[in-house]
Amino acid sequence: MAVYTDITEMELGAFLRGYAIGDLLSYKGIAEGTENSNFILHTSGGSFILTLYEKRVEKNDLPFFLGLMEHLARQGISCPLPVHRRDGEIIGELAGRPAAIITFLEGMWPRRPSAAHCREVGKVLAAMHLAGADFQLSRPNALSLPGWHRLWEGCVDRADEVEPGLRAEVSADFASLEAAWPADLPAGVIHADLFPDNVFFLGNDLSGVIDFYFACNDFLAYDVATCLNAWCFERDHAFNLTKGTAFLAGYQSVRPLTPTEIEALPLLCHGSALRFMLTRLYDWLNGPGGALVNKRDPLEYVRKMRFHRQIGSASEYGAVMP
Amino acid sequence: MAVYTDITEMELGAFLRGYAIGDLLSYKGIAEGTENSNFILHTSGGSFILTLYEKRVEKNDLPFFLGLMEHLARQGISCPLPVHRRDGEIIGELAGRPAAIITFLEGMWPRRPSAAHCREVGKVLAAMHLAGADFQLSRPNALSLPGWHRLWEGCVDRADEVEPGLRAEVSADFASLEAAWPADLPAGVIHADLFPDNVFFLGNDLSGVIDFYFACNDFLAYDVATCLNAWCFERDHAFNLTKGTAFLAGYQSVRPLTPTEIEALPLLCHGSALRFMLTRLYDWLNGPGGALVNKRDPLEYVRKMRFHRQIGSASEYGAVMP
Repeated sequence: MAVYTDITEMELGAFLRGYAIGDLLSYKGIAEGTENSNFILHTSGGSFILTLYEKRVEKNDLPFFLGLMEHLARQGISCPLPVHRRDGEIIGELAGRPAAIITFLEGMWPRRPSAAHCREVGKVLAAMHLAGADFQLSRPNALSLPGWHRLWEGCVDRADEVEPGLRAEVSADFASLEAAWPADLPAGVIHADLFPDNVFFLGNDLSGVIDFYFACNDFLAYDVATCLNAWCFERDHAFNLTKGTAFLAGYQSVRPLTPTEIEALPLLCHGSALRFMLTRLYDWLNGPGGALVNKRDPLEYVRKMRFHRQIGSASEYGAVMP
Repeated sequence: MAVYTDITEMELGAFLRGYAIGDLLSYKGIAEGTENSNFILHTSGGSFILTLYEKRVEKNDLPFFLGLMEHLARQGISCPLPVHRRDGEIIGELAGRPAAIITFLEGMWPRRPSAAHCREVGKVLAAMHLAGADFQLSRPNALSLPGWHRLWEGCVDRADEVEPGLRAEVSADFASLEAAWPADLPAGVIHADLFPDNVFFLGNDLSGVIDFYFACNDFLAYDVATCLNAWCFERDHAFNLTKGTAFLAGYQSVRPLTPTEIEALPLLCHGSALRFMLTRLYDWLNGPGGALVNKRDPLEYVRKMRFHRQIGSASEYGAVMP
């Protein structure tokens, strides 16, 4: 559930006079996103999303995130288009916070993704990787190995509270991942958080990709690994080979993976699972409200780490050498 | 922030096939209402609100609440119109809960109501009282004196934790209110919760009244008293006579109050302030998450009780004898 800064209709009316999107008809805070406050706006010009950026988002990163959305939308990717203010800017200020308005995308995120959904996600991920190639800004991945270390330092002493033995298990993973992490895979702009709640469908047709607030520059295949983790496991924690095959075939139909990328997938999947385990573990142990309030279970990702550790080759994910 | 039951797009799609409102385009949980889960739906037929009734709402009361909205809307009150299912019903079931779809009303609730807003609220309250006269169903007010007693029993032993002396003060109020509570004022269907967040405006024009889930049969002037408490005090807890005068003049321009009703206003305002103090106190002491989570301060209403206790005549609220 979103952080929720309330705003008055007077403040919002004044803010909207900076835009040419018509008269305000209604606005309602929505229960989506975990980092920011989001509102659906209805104006005489249509529906929009208003986002207030809360303190967990670095203000200096906003031109990257919003500029990327605009860049991708203009290249034909179905993602929100930031609305320009009358002064030409795409970032304003509302209720003391940086704020932006983006177009509203119809569609529903799939609570139970099918193989057909996975194939479409593979295609759009590859299309985003290609379309991002000529984006001018760059942003290092704050959640690659050094970032994981910082998270782990905030959790390590209490990791065994979550599961006995977790401290030793994760420490060993750090050693093996650091020794083997690739140095020279194809890199570019990645979404870095393409979970099902960030992809909208109308039926089986993908209608939009949202939430670019973790986007950064890193190995393209690392984004592929994150999607395998996010889309291709069942609720019983089993990997679904049909979905993995569909996702990778969709991706490769738009951008074939190199043999080196395919070989690196087990390691990248393992590392990506560690990354999401660490943010969940950190929030679990350090977030507000103790362990009671609506938090995601780090153990789901511990299970995925164990799965990837025993993978022999990327063919077990459904990958086919090009 | 609303209780929030997530629903899958499959469940919702199946549910919507019971209605003739077009194809589902999107749905988002909204951060409004405290008793139920609410979603904005966009369909090819327009915008709607979907409500899932959580356990705090008595299922047997739903025909009263939804039937009242339909009755008032058909009489020209700007309130949501429940959408009939293809089978003629207005209540269905979704995710194991009773569920209904109502029309979406544009407009914003006034975070800082003006005297002009108060006048419009007075007019619509009176219009609802007149329009409700021939509504066929009835529902006793669960939050009149006997209900207040039950709430108080759940709080009395810890009342002094909130403010020393509160226990004795409220106990004395119970005695004086019970001795003096009127027996025979004009009665009918009342909204019973017409706070600013339940009234939408577009500029100074009232565009809608929502949230009929406390509606019941009781003295009409008790609804007037609740609005005086909800609309006519400032943030510094001072009563604003200009707003009181505007609200009462608006009301009386549509339905003149009888002299007996006007004489009873100080007592009714005092009782209504006690009622809202009690539900806040109860939630404060007994709600989930201790006193930390987003709860409304009972002391705001203790201050209002003290104000009303020293009122000599309703002219101090701005009332003018007809």
